Amino acid sequence: MLSLAAHSLCVRATGYQQSLHSIATVISGNKTSKIVRERLKKEVEKMASQFSGFRPGLVVLQVGIEAKHIRLPNTTTQDEVLHSIMSVNENACVHGLIVQLPLDSANCIDTEFVTNAVSSQKDVDGLSCINAGKLSRGDLNDCFIPCTPNACMELIRQTGVFVAGKHAVVIGRSKIVGAPMHDLLLWNHATVTTCHSKTPDLPEQVGRADILVVGAGRAEMVRGEWVKEGAVVIDCGINHVPDETRPSGKRVVGDVHYSSASQRAGYITPVPGGVGPMTVAMLMENTVQSAQRFLLKLRR
Amino acid sequence: MLSLAAHSLCVRATGYQQSLHSIATVISGNKTSKIVRERLKKEVEKMASQFSGFRPGLVVLQVGIEAKHIRLPNTTTQDEVLHSIMSVNENACVHGLIVQLPLDSANCIDTEFVTNAVSSQKDVDGLSCINAGKLSRGDLNDCFIPCTPNACMELIRQTGVFVAGKHAVVIGRSKIVGAPMHDLLLWNHATVTTCHSKTPDLPEQVGRADILVVGAGRAEMVRGEWVKEGAVVIDCGINHVPDETRPSGKRVVGDVHYSSASQRAGYITPVPGGVGPMTVAMLMENTVQSAQRFLLKLRR
Repeated sequence: MLSLAAHSLCVRATGYQQSLHSIATVISGNKTSKIVRERLKKEVEKMASQFSGFRPGLVVLQVGIEAKHIRLPNTTTQDEVLHSIMSVNENACVHGLIVQLPLDSANCIDTEFVTNAVSSQKDVDGLSCINAGKLSRGDLNDCFIPCTPNACMELIRQTGVFVAGKHAVVIGRSKIVGAPMHDLLLWNHATVTTCHSKTPDLPEQVGRADILVVGAGRAEMVRGEWVKEGAVVIDCGINHVPDETRPSGKRVVGDVHYSSASQRAGYITPVPGGVGPMTVAMLMENTVQSAQRFLLKLRR
Repeated sequence: MLSLAAHSLCVRATGYQQSLHSIATVISGNKTSKIVRERLKKEVEKMASQFSGFRPGLVVLQVGIEAKHIRLPNTTTQDEVLHSIMSVNENACVHGLIVQLPLDSANCIDTEFVTNAVSSQKDVDGLSCINAGKLSRGDLNDCFIPCTPNACMELIRQTGVFVAGKHAVVIGRSKIVGAPMHDLLLWNHATVTTCHSKTPDLPEQVGRADILVVGAGRAEMVRGEWVKEGAVVIDCGINHVPDETRPSGKRVVGDVHYSSASQRAGYITPVPGGVGPMTVAMLMENTVQSAQRFLLKLRR
């Protein structure tokens, strides 16, 4: 099994130097994801040379609107979706399967049921309850970690700030961001506080965070003045706000008010160009990891 | 499916009145567990009358030392344990199966693998990764909640203190206490901080807790002076310490220094007589719930 340490990116050598002036160092997802993609390319080449022509396989299954690979019509029934998933589960050439949510069908489809039909060995999105259970209970080497929190963790590691013993605050408790982010920080030995819509004293909670990860889905809700001096701030938000100065009439902002937060944070991710590109790289990472596990089993 | 609300105990009418003087109200596990057992007795009678002679079935599978039901010798192999589990999984008269840990065998047994072999529908201990995954991601109505945190939650509810919006602190992150306790408090809408052996500022973290649950396994480690005035303090610890004044030469204490903490807490559980007896009642609760789900499926 791949160890957690091995799973961590080999990007420390290119890590940032904290800036001496008071403005936060920007953690670039574009830069880091490029490093990951280059490393993965080499790993795939290595697999192909060791097992003639072998390639990691990924299937994206999507219902309705634009699809990448398996596109089911929006008249699809739950049984048809499950049948599709089963055939991918059984296909030895595929090492990863993600089901694009929401399932945009005219028929009633049980999202939980469909998500859990994906073989836990091919669940590179890490959303099945088997993988969630392992992550939440600390079995990190034996599961797939959801791509967004995995991306955040790599961006945090890249700053060189040690996570163990730090106070981390996560805003949000969604299945794809907040909840697994809590787990990852906890099992990397941070003291972790999870905040959400029912938290009455968010500014005070944020003010105690050495590491702050925000996945709240509300434009610029975290104000710079809440942020602890020198904190690592990771912003998972992607919000469209009106902007008349742009040809499109809108622009993308995160869940953190960037210009004020960057005055106080030690490190901060921009939106766009932060967590987003890293998330895509992490999906590739999980697929390559899945293919490696598959090959390890072949060798035994 | 049983709703979370229905799952909550009907003990509010007997709830405590907070004492006017400064010493904490004692939350009695003995008293509450008696109420639960009486309610369960009625529910079992109801099932037996509706489905002639039906009874919820529970199997405890234990390797080595004293056993209740299925006792496998300590020369048992992993395959034999798995075979035993499979036959219980398939037995329609059994609605709950718990595997007593640690598995005290001379042979090497993979505890994780064995725990996850128990059908998630009969896993009344709530320790399989499927049940852990559901709990950690907020699907509380569709899973079994481990007995100790379930017991703690009922004891908290009984005080009448609302959990939503409160700051809860959990000390410990074990699979059977701390980690699921975090999940339960979070999905009951508390802001939750998880502390553990790597937390450098435990007294400060504890001092911010409106609700404090301790599952650290260290005798009297939480000092009264750390506790926030009026907090609800739930102590999961069971530690044996030397006591020459006792015939046995020892006594049982919790993870909280009771006499000092009761001077500051609003409510506190004693050890013994707090979480312990409630945990046993919760195992019965889960078994009855499992039997009810089984009957619901029969009816469809």
